[in-house]
Amino acid sequence: MPTTTAARELPHPAREEIRLATVLHALSDPMRLRIATALDPHGEGEGRGASCSQVDLPVSPSTVTHHFRVLREAGVIKQCYRGTAKINCLRRTDLDTLYPGLLDAILTGARRETEPGTAP
Amino acid sequence: MPTTTAARELPHPAREEIRLATVLHALSDPMRLRIATALDPHGEGEGRGASCSQVDLPVSPSTVTHHFRVLREAGVIKQCYRGTAKINCLRRTDLDTLYPGLLDAILTGARRETEPGTAP
Repeated sequence: MPTTTAARELPHPAREEIRLATVLHALSDPMRLRIATALDPHGEGEGRGASCSQVDLPVSPSTVTHHFRVLREAGVIKQCYRGTAKINCLRRTDLDTLYPGLLDAILTGARRETEPGTAP
Repeated sequence: MPTTTAARELPHPAREEIRLATVLHALSDPMRLRIATALDPHGEGEGRGASCSQVDLPVSPSTVTHHFRVLREAGVIKQCYRGTAKINCLRRTDLDTLYPGLLDAILTGARRETEPGTAP
């Protein structure tokens, strides 16, 4: 009996479709900043990234899904299926090419505000 | 007859009250990005800055006022009265201290997206 593989590609903007205002809006929420900060060390590309459940957020599962979708649709993260898990990566190469220094400045600022004793 | 000077100080967050998510939200709008980009060359401090009418925006006066207020309340700009004019400056010193590199990365990205032929 033949097996079929369902196409489960999620829509992403191409690099040239990404817009600064949309990226800033996606990152203008404390939970989404937390997701971006948590995904950063997991890298991007084949075999890298983290599942949604690896990012600990104090909100409901449907809100988590919403936040990941906003980040994906803005071009901040890439989401793909690996088996049954949805794996997420920051689109660092695309963002660093489009907006040099932006992601690092944002992630550094986000870490500073959430880690006690690191304010300037 | 004595004259009284009305206190017309507008409320601004202190540097330590500024939050990254709020700054990113303030700058996540094409019109507000345009305001920030237009104010940048006018500098900050005594005698510097630009009036609202010096920033050319294709929206109604009340929408212009709204956008400037969002930027002020987020800590992105300082607004003060000079005579009858409201003068606006980017809070570059505060933002560069809190989020090194952020403002430059955003302004560079905003200019690139609005100036033709400068895409990477």
